[in-house]
Amino acid sequence: MSDFPKFVEFREEGPREGFQIEKKIYPIEERIELIDMLSETGLKRIQVGSFVSPKYVPQMADTGELFQRIKRKPGVNYTSLWLNDKGFRKALTAHEVDIDPRLLFYPSEAFAQSNNNCSSAEMREKQRDWVRLYKEEGYTVDAAYVMTAFGCNLEGPIPQERILDDFRFILQLCEEENIPVPILVVADTMGWGNPEAVKRMIGALRELAPEARIGMHIHDTRGLGIANVYAALSMGVDMFESSVAGLGGCPFAGHGHARAAGNVCTEDAVFLCHELGIETGIDLDKLIAAAVKAEEIIGVPLMGRVMHTGGLDKYRKSL
Amino acid sequence: MSDFPKFVEFREEGPREGFQIEKKIYPIEERIELIDMLSETGLKRIQVGSFVSPKYVPQMADTGELFQRIKRKPGVNYTSLWLNDKGFRKALTAHEVDIDPRLLFYPSEAFAQSNNNCSSAEMREKQRDWVRLYKEEGYTVDAAYVMTAFGCNLEGPIPQERILDDFRFILQLCEEENIPVPILVVADTMGWGNPEAVKRMIGALRELAPEARIGMHIHDTRGLGIANVYAALSMGVDMFESSVAGLGGCPFAGHGHARAAGNVCTEDAVFLCHELGIETGIDLDKLIAAAVKAEEIIGVPLMGRVMHTGGLDKYRKSL
Repeated sequence: MSDFPKFVEFREEGPREGFQIEKKIYPIEERIELIDMLSETGLKRIQVGSFVSPKYVPQMADTGELFQRIKRKPGVNYTSLWLNDKGFRKALTAHEVDIDPRLLFYPSEAFAQSNNNCSSAEMREKQRDWVRLYKEEGYTVDAAYVMTAFGCNLEGPIPQERILDDFRFILQLCEEENIPVPILVVADTMGWGNPEAVKRMIGALRELAPEARIGMHIHDTRGLGIANVYAALSMGVDMFESSVAGLGGCPFAGHGHARAAGNVCTEDAVFLCHELGIETGIDLDKLIAAAVKAEEIIGVPLMGRVMHTGGLDKYRKSL
Repeated sequence: MSDFPKFVEFREEGPREGFQIEKKIYPIEERIELIDMLSETGLKRIQVGSFVSPKYVPQMADTGELFQRIKRKPGVNYTSLWLNDKGFRKALTAHEVDIDPRLLFYPSEAFAQSNNNCSSAEMREKQRDWVRLYKEEGYTVDAAYVMTAFGCNLEGPIPQERILDDFRFILQLCEEENIPVPILVVADTMGWGNPEAVKRMIGALRELAPEARIGMHIHDTRGLGIANVYAALSMGVDMFESSVAGLGGCPFAGHGHARAAGNVCTEDAVFLCHELGIETGIDLDKLIAAAVKAEEIIGVPLMGRVMHTGGLDKYRKSL
């Protein structure tokens, strides 16, 4: 009935998502310590920061320095985000950035406009330019993201067919440009997904691209994050982007002292996998220690659950 | 493939679970206001407090007064907890308590001893006495709980067969005492459950008691609460006990300023149901307002998600 993968890859976005969203700039030493702790957990890909305009995102201005100062663990990829050609050039010339070329699709017209100041269709065409730019630099596309795949705060519900249409475009683009199909990432950018919608979307995407690897970027905005991970796992999804301790929640959303949830919490999702018998290569206790460190840095309670209680292995072992 | 119910009943435990666990005693006026707000949400059963020893649980000493001062909404049941004969008598003589007779089973030997100072088997036999006592007072048993149904921090993992054995005992007891089978409640008292374990347990219980109504009491201790609700829904479970805002988390567990999660969060679970097209009779916006009130009372961020962002209807309606 279900099609759980044997092994699931988690890609850690906490160091970028978590600190980019905060108004405060946290000491670089603290962020280095967190990344170094994450390096020891078994995670194989950590997004360290973002090469974006220091004018608009001052929190990420020291991303280059971060790449110089973190302690690299062999086998771990240290990646970064960029949003334009200039950012990509910065990543290329910065100290040992593991380049993971991405394509980004914006099926929500309103979100395309507000985020990129161009239409959905224009963003599509720009992705062709990215493919060529990556090629020129000797890279192939690692992952292609279709954003707001379950709906958008700015645009409202988005029909599944519209999402699938972007994925069709991706497959066609790969054929035209003669590159391998990247990981197809269904991104629930604004936390609109529910487990049944996830199943329907992944099922339809599998029909469209039976050979492709499918990943998900999940936000836990409305509490369904882990249920959505579970639904995706049951459909064979084996790559998730997530944030340690749930870093990345919006500190000022909601009601005063409370925080809105952001990316789905890495250690809660890892705990789910382990309880389901799915391997992740991650040491949950070490990951929990990193989550606790993240909470210490931010200085307010974070939304992760298992970080505040611990997993179950200690009870199983001791009894 | 799945067997979602059309309508799900939520039984609200926040006012008891939430304040019983705190060291502080919150002003009765505040708790009355919260209960009155909950009464307006569409919830049909609210556990107001607990008739237990005021020496050991001073937070619940004014439960009798609460029952006198809350504003009753027609159609809503205002219930309470009791743990012994004396507590039950107090509930019977207090001001308009809606009596919901319960049976409690402790398959974990260690938990039975620590909570009740007697063995698992002795607790079983005591339930027979409760059935008779309820009968004498003119009540039939409403629900029978098997605690720590997925494992116990004190005892470790508990085989499913041991849990089913308690349910078998319940069915036999009902036959012997010639009473209707109550709601069979699978209680994940310590947050050991995962969605697959939930499916296995509910599936086995359905085979055992095909005609019985099955409910769940779910704790979100390790982040799998909503995924477990989803799994239970897919098996047709149509009654859940939960807490508004996730009230009931342990304020002192974990790492200093952070809180461990307690009961699964009512409004997040209600949001899940609505997104799945399952009716609850509950107004999500009103429930979120009550959750925000609960957070104001406690004065620290609570673990609920959708209370900090709101649901999706506003986007659907306005666009």
